[in-house]
Amino acid sequence: MAPRKIIIDTDPGQDDAIAILAAFGSPELDVLGITAVAGNVPLPLTELNARKLCELAGRPETKVFAGCARPMVRDLVTAEEVHGKTGLDGPDLPDPTMPLQPEHAVDWIIDTLMTEPAGTVTLCPLGPLTNIAMAMVKEPAIVPRIEEIVLMGGGYFEGGNTTPAAEFNIYVDPHAAHVVFASGVKLTKAPLDVTHKALMNRKFIEDLRALGTPVGIASAQMLDFYERFDMERYGQDGGPLHDPCVIAFLLKPDLFVGKQCAVQIDIHSELSMGATLVDWWGQTDRPKNCFVLNRVDAEGFFALMLERLARL
Amino acid sequence: MAPRKIIIDTDPGQDDAIAILAAFGSPELDVLGITAVAGNVPLPLTELNARKLCELAGRPETKVFAGCARPMVRDLVTAEEVHGKTGLDGPDLPDPTMPLQPEHAVDWIIDTLMTEPAGTVTLCPLGPLTNIAMAMVKEPAIVPRIEEIVLMGGGYFEGGNTTPAAEFNIYVDPHAAHVVFASGVKLTKAPLDVTHKALMNRKFIEDLRALGTPVGIASAQMLDFYERFDMERYGQDGGPLHDPCVIAFLLKPDLFVGKQCAVQIDIHSELSMGATLVDWWGQTDRPKNCFVLNRVDAEGFFALMLERLARL
Amino acid sequence: MAPRKIIIDTDPGQDDAIAILAAFGSPELDVLGITAVAGNVPLPLTELNARKLCELAGRPETKVFAGCARPMVRDLVTAEEVHGKTGLDGPDLPDPTMPLQPEHAVDWIIDTLMTEPAGTVTLCPLGPLTNIAMAMVKEPAIVPRIEEIVLMGGGYFEGGNTTPAAEFNIYVDPHAAHVVFASGVKLTKAPLDVTHKALMNRKFIEDLRALGTPVGIASAQMLDFYERFDMERYGQDGGPLHDPCVIAFLLKPDLFVGKQCAVQIDIHSELSMGATLVDWWGQTDRPKNCFVLNRVDAEGFFALMLERLARL
Amino acid sequence: MAPRKIIIDTDPGQDDAIAILAAFGSPELDVLGITAVAGNVPLPLTELNARKLCELAGRPETKVFAGCARPMVRDLVTAEEVHGKTGLDGPDLPDPTMPLQPEHAVDWIIDTLMTEPAGTVTLCPLGPLTNIAMAMVKEPAIVPRIEEIVLMGGGYFEGGNTTPAAEFNIYVDPHAAHVVFASGVKLTKAPLDVTHKALMNRKFIEDLRALGTPVGIASAQMLDFYERFDMERYGQDGGPLHDPCVIAFLLKPDLFVGKQCAVQIDIHSELSMGATLVDWWGQTDRPKNCFVLNRVDAEGFFALMLERLARL
Repeated sequence: MAPRKIIIDTDPGQDDAIAILAAFGSPELDVLGITAVAGNVPLPLTELNARKLCELAGRPETKVFAGCARPMVRDLVTAEEVHGKTGLDGPDLPDPTMPLQPEHAVDWIIDTLMTEPAGTVTLCPLGPLTNIAMAMVKEPAIVPRIEEIVLMGGGYFEGGNTTPAAEFNIYVDPHAAHVVFASGVKLTKAPLDVTHKALMNRKFIEDLRALGTPVGIASAQMLDFYERFDMERYGQDGGPLHDPCVIAFLLKPDLFVGKQCAVQIDIHSELSMGATLVDWWGQTDRPKNCFVLNRVDAEGFFALMLERLARL
Repeated sequence: MAPRKIIIDTDPGQDDAIAILAAFGSPELDVLGITAVAGNVPLPLTELNARKLCELAGRPETKVFAGCARPMVRDLVTAEEVHGKTGLDGPDLPDPTMPLQPEHAVDWIIDTLMTEPAGTVTLCPLGPLTNIAMAMVKEPAIVPRIEEIVLMGGGYFEGGNTTPAAEFNIYVDPHAAHVVFASGVKLTKAPLDVTHKALMNRKFIEDLRALGTPVGIASAQMLDFYERFDMERYGQDGGPLHDPCVIAFLLKPDLFVGKQCAVQIDIHSELSMGATLVDWWGQTDRPKNCFVLNRVDAEGFFALMLERLARL
Repeated sequence: MAPRKIIIDTDPGQDDAIAILAAFGSPELDVLGITAVAGNVPLPLTELNARKLCELAGRPETKVFAGCARPMVRDLVTAEEVHGKTGLDGPDLPDPTMPLQPEHAVDWIIDTLMTEPAGTVTLCPLGPLTNIAMAMVKEPAIVPRIEEIVLMGGGYFEGGNTTPAAEFNIYVDPHAAHVVFASGVKLTKAPLDVTHKALMNRKFIEDLRALGTPVGIASAQMLDFYERFDMERYGQDGGPLHDPCVIAFLLKPDLFVGKQCAVQIDIHSELSMGATLVDWWGQTDRPKNCFVLNRVDAEGFFALMLERLARL
Repeated sequence: MAPRKIIIDTDPGQDDAIAILAAFGSPELDVLGITAVAGNVPLPLTELNARKLCELAGRPETKVFAGCARPMVRDLVTAEEVHGKTGLDGPDLPDPTMPLQPEHAVDWIIDTLMTEPAGTVTLCPLGPLTNIAMAMVKEPAIVPRIEEIVLMGGGYFEGGNTTPAAEFNIYVDPHAAHVVFASGVKLTKAPLDVTHKALMNRKFIEDLRALGTPVGIASAQMLDFYERFDMERYGQDGGPLHDPCVIAFLLKPDLFVGKQCAVQIDIHSELSMGATLVDWWGQTDRPKNCFVLNRVDAEGFFALMLERLARL
């Protein structure tokens, strides 16, 4: 079977990094390109980090594109307190020598979707949905050509991790999220509800380090730095590995349990800005627009991630 | 020690009923009066039901007052789909012969708080907060005289039970909730987060019935009717017993675990109307205005309720 | 013909003062009582000012009631920059000796409407609508018994005078305004659109002073102080006389031109909080709930006011 | 002096047509290109109409680009009730033979601004601001390179013409308007407040027709059709000529009186969605981000338009 064609839209971010590396380590996936967006850190860093990760993975031929430097409507909010000043704090990765592609990420997403056969390209947003929504507004004809969008974002039973109401990716660009969730595209999301059920333990990180490879060592260094924030906030023994859930779902959907639900994004109230209102219990007759992941086989998830990173 | 003076503000409702009966069965509590409010069913039914319950408990001397027939700002929403047409569907309780007090509940709340020594009266709202907030707006001098408010309402980690964003009591009168939560009064709330962790099992209801008393039999009949709704919606083996958590907390606070948090009510967005945004993880510097119950010793809770109802 | 029974609900305020005095000087009107509300200045001052004005008018037998000290939902905003620290800056009126009635204004409004024959009492709110809305929520049965509400408030073609979106009376308690405008009661409003078309000229104030009476002299002193604010802000030769438009409309409706329109109050957006959205051109199918005054015969208006104050 | 370089962003629309024709007739202006956007009618019609107008004006070499077919966040609303099914109802203009440029309007706006010397290109939006805001989000570096934006949109003292709160151009894409008004770019707007002060009289339309030229005759036919809507709604003798005010301001700013004000767009409340809140009286300390036109020498304005259309 031909590998599944995906575009990774991302704002690395250490957990983005593990997702990207896992995708590279998965023959089932054909990473057509990586599009960077402002989010965890500003755009110049996220596109730089994307290229660093390609080179770390030994995939310098990967096409990396820079996209939007700001959200559609609101001012940019970043999360250096989580990811460090560079966004990839932890290891000391060399500056990349591979080029940034000259095309704007939004245009390349549009071109790819209009060129590839309809229904054959899956979008994997790991950050704010700015690039995806901008592409949909600039060229609405792409919407029916998207095979599926599998994204990390939102939180319902877990509340928010940026405000009491909102998870970071959705909070940063709630209007983009609204555009995507209202588009009618086939949609799966990995919210905090599932990612908080897959907390890393020490063994996972040490197993990565024990791979002895540049990927394994750098990943362990990234995660050491990264999980510190969540462990302190939540008083837990390990931090969540948000973004890799997207790749794991593509590879082994059976690791996850979810439900098709109506999901709406609050863009009206400052207090609830970016809340992802999931009608989990079917209380309303709103259209069921998203498959919402809710549970995960954590052991299987980490084993899968370890296995894929071990291949690089 | 003198019993603690409480006012029960309520919209019975079968779970309100168990709370009221448990209060009557508790010598530690002195029920100064019961104030009815529109909520689960319209006001004429909630004040009638309150009197039925007083007579069922053998406490016809209790002062029952009718309060507000509508929320402060929005139109009334009721919940007959949960509680039945009467609000107390299940048993066939006789029409009460005890009188309704002539004073408006809002005025009696004000008078009581201004007459009793400051800091000696606790308010126990089991329904929409209309009466309490109306009293605060009509006579702001009551606010510093309230010992504490312990209420059932809201939901954060459990989402809402009326809309994806909001729990019923808060959704019905979010503006009243905003007034109460912004008042600076000492505040404890039992949200869905805790009440959904105390699901009734069959044994609890059968133990009530086995009491053989009018209270025990009627309670079992009420709960049989009442738990059906939640069992169907949530696919669980038993329904939650929301309102009695308020009385249980007054009697045995050690049954509960909670945290002092900032809680804000969304009154701006139609989508998030009535959301209770709890800053559980201390993400903001909003003032910590409420002790939010989050966990409960369910076994101890049901044992306590059974014991108190057995005394009537 | 029997005089028309009115209740003046007010937060004096120099323009409230002229309205109250004009009502006292009008045999067509029977002022059943004056209810004070927090607004231009806090409640202790507005009820005091109401009594000062009764005594100035030689009407110490008038019943004056204190109402709500704060808006229904939001924090109180006052306007000392317009009205001065006392709310009646200008003349040096003696402290009143007449008593404040012991009943709360909200209760007296309810009692009066429930006691007087239905449809015989007109409410004349000159300040925030807190007392009126609180009465409607506390006792919804009053709504169909109100003959009419004629109020000063809002602004559409003139924008706002407190924020770019909102006029003071509505801005201070937009939720109360929403309750009143959604109540279905017969409603007429004098917004900034009409009051800004009746700017005082020097002659009006001097004619008042030339009356030589305590009322005339004090009124001139009040207006000298009061019109300064608007003249500076708007660069005009005279200030508007907002509240007396309500009394003038009761006395001579032909002085005004208006239209029956749909009016809605924004209570959702902080930016537009309290905006009175008038569907003047019939763009929507919203129910036409208010007669909106838009033009006035300014000369006739001032002549009427002068004539009525001259009678005191 | 070299002519001023402008980009006309437009959704023709008969009043857009007069503006475009007037620009073509003005040697002071160098129309670099015309970018079409969805608004009065859907995008396929607005780009078609733009080309029809270029050919009518004898300017088939003009570059016309199609831009966004939908607003940034909300669903598209159109105004066929005003402009007719084609958007240019009235004359029978032939289908254009000149080509549509292949580049997306958003990209051409970005390319032009990045290529031309900074501060030498003025944007003239006559419709929803989608293309302009999309360009700003896609490439924020264009913002400081824009010489000025002179747009038709909004209404404050005139209220809205689409909802009681909002004017059509802003209502259709309030989020785009927010982006533009918050961008810090030099900004002038011609709102309904000024365009409603320039109502066409019969003589203006007949003078156009009397030119005897294709442009004159077609313009007269367009305006006959177009002014019908406003005359019926507002009961006036003539309709407003909104969009040409933008071109007139570029040519003869002295025809207009305005003020530098703080302007904010409401994007939070459904009721006030798209309201342009102008702090005309300096009530707030919000930054003064826009020169708001408020009065116009109507006679001079129509004479100017007639003169320029006569040149074609």
